[in-house]
Amino acid sequence: MRRPLVGAALLAASALSAAAQTAPPAPAQAGVSGPLVLEKQGSFFVGGRNVKSETLSTLPAYAPSGTIAVEQMYVRYQVPVAPQRRPVTLIHGCCLTGKTWETTPDGRMGWDEYFVRKGHPTYVIDQVSRGRSSADPSLVNSVKLGQTPPDKTPPIYAAGQEAAWAIFRFGTEYPKVHDGMRFPLAAKEEFFKQMVVDWIATLPTPNPTVKALSELSKQLDGTVLISHSQSGIYPFQTAALDTKGIAGIVSIEPGTCPSATGDLKPYLGIPIMVLWGDYVETSSRWAPRLKACREFAEALGKAGGRIDHVVLPDIGIKGNSHMLMQDDNSLALADLVIAWIEKNVGTKKN
Amino acid sequence: MRRPLVGAALLAASALSAAAQTAPPAPAQAGVSGPLVLEKQGSFFVGGRNVKSETLSTLPAYAPSGTIAVEQMYVRYQVPVAPQRRPVTLIHGCCLTGKTWETTPDGRMGWDEYFVRKGHPTYVIDQVSRGRSSADPSLVNSVKLGQTPPDKTPPIYAAGQEAAWAIFRFGTEYPKVHDGMRFPLAAKEEFFKQMVVDWIATLPTPNPTVKALSELSKQLDGTVLISHSQSGIYPFQTAALDTKGIAGIVSIEPGTCPSATGDLKPYLGIPIMVLWGDYVETSSRWAPRLKACREFAEALGKAGGRIDHVVLPDIGIKGNSHMLMQDDNSLALADLVIAWIEKNVGTKKN
Repeated sequence: MRRPLVGAALLAASALSAAAQTAPPAPAQAGVSGPLVLEKQGSFFVGGRNVKSETLSTLPAYAPSGTIAVEQMYVRYQVPVAPQRRPVTLIHGCCLTGKTWETTPDGRMGWDEYFVRKGHPTYVIDQVSRGRSSADPSLVNSVKLGQTPPDKTPPIYAAGQEAAWAIFRFGTEYPKVHDGMRFPLAAKEEFFKQMVVDWIATLPTPNPTVKALSELSKQLDGTVLISHSQSGIYPFQTAALDTKGIAGIVSIEPGTCPSATGDLKPYLGIPIMVLWGDYVETSSRWAPRLKACREFAEALGKAGGRIDHVVLPDIGIKGNSHMLMQDDNSLALADLVIAWIEKNVGTKKN
Repeated sequence: MRRPLVGAALLAASALSAAAQTAPPAPAQAGVSGPLVLEKQGSFFVGGRNVKSETLSTLPAYAPSGTIAVEQMYVRYQVPVAPQRRPVTLIHGCCLTGKTWETTPDGRMGWDEYFVRKGHPTYVIDQVSRGRSSADPSLVNSVKLGQTPPDKTPPIYAAGQEAAWAIFRFGTEYPKVHDGMRFPLAAKEEFFKQMVVDWIATLPTPNPTVKALSELSKQLDGTVLISHSQSGIYPFQTAALDTKGIAGIVSIEPGTCPSATGDLKPYLGIPIMVLWGDYVETSSRWAPRLKACREFAEALGKAGGRIDHVVLPDIGIKGNSHMLMQDDNSLALADLVIAWIEKNVGTKKN
């Protein structure tokens, strides 16, 4: 894997094949059934800072003036007994929370538990300003009080189900369904309940989640950052801040990859996998992103980086949506990622 | 416990003493150390409905028009192997999320795990419109677009740390500390990171969380609803909707109890514990609430209800804050609740 990348799909297929051969033998359903045994679990916050505000509230019961914490990132973790494998950090995408990685909409095991059962200490985050990681309502209240013009209201948003349908590539447009679709659409209502109000456009640049991921990586002293979609770029941005603590990167269907013509140095020492589902080439939203990531992968390979750019249909796996960690073959895809980690990142610390 | 309540504190003390005698023997630290073994875990949503909106977004990347799910309630659960005890449902209070019950700010085990270790299937929720249970940003965007007057901006808020200090009874006012305070104030910054933007004042009445709790109770077919603070009234409101599936109620420091002169019938068949920490009588915010709950407990006892109204200092336990599930004796208090459930609710279904 230290040779430069020649043909992404070909290399990926051979690398994955090799990985599959070297991975520990796994009987059918092993790790999925039977009790789950944890050495420990818990939750905590990373990052965050205190800010003062005069518009925390417009309700009589709560004072308008005071201090709140902002930019903290919620992390929930589970550690298997005597873990033999790397810690992984699961980072959700747009308009969603860490729920992305938990029980699927149709009730199957999520990647969060599966990675633990396969020996990985597993850390699931809520991005700053979503889920259990708070946002700052001060500007909204300032508008309410007439202190800020209405057009300066912060641009918080919810993604509508019809638009999300095409973004998540369930079909070309709502409610059409791609042939062979593996997403459990019979449970689509359960999936749409996962979506939350997104405050990301109100956050400073770089997104504070990136700084928090860097801090978490250092704490874990060698984690594989597994990102998705809108967070796809985060592990790369984290590496650009500081590579310390980043043992590997798996970027699933990234909204953005680093520029092929930018500074590639931060990524040279880190094993990287970029992973795509199906129906990408025919998506006006996703095809250009795939192309840009392929260019990045080729440039990084030529520069001596260690990267697998994997498009699932190219290795014979068809029907995966953008939400591939919830598709009907989600655990087989987790196995593929786990085997890649085993081969390319290994079990020891840097 | 089926006799009418005579003297709340006295009865509580004797009942708890009896409960402690009948509870299974527990060596020191039993259940806290050693691996955690789970039969299963996962997460899902309860409730929710779809609404259409024309103001989901003001950003070009996301369509303004579309459908979103609202009023769904996120639930995360863990079930121990061969559970011998009742499912419990942990319901957080104002400005917080299910994180309330997880690892304490100073890194000790939360009630979520402790109840599992003690044999209770444990369900932790995020209230509708907080944490992983989404809110609706449509009205905020309508203001931004000039379609709604600024003063109609929804009253979302964050509780400031200075005001929260007195509400959570760390001291009479920020930054004074009550003598003997058991809350881990050395980790107060970690605690304040748990607080989130609260959309509760934008929700319809009754709060959709109550309806979702009723649905969850029916699914669990006999759960003890354990609520806190602003959610203290929810189990009672849930019982007023339908007592089906509610095996018991533990209301910790409720912001409101049912009226002593109201309809008490919904509560007559359900074992109820109302639990208070220390420093309540001298708090202008909390003393009247304690008084009203005591009146409710006395009225319910006279009407034939089964209720223990427990003020911890009255049974010799001093120094507890409003956030008693995070205080330094949090697991001893969990034991007290578990013993109460064992005695008054029992292990079998209704």
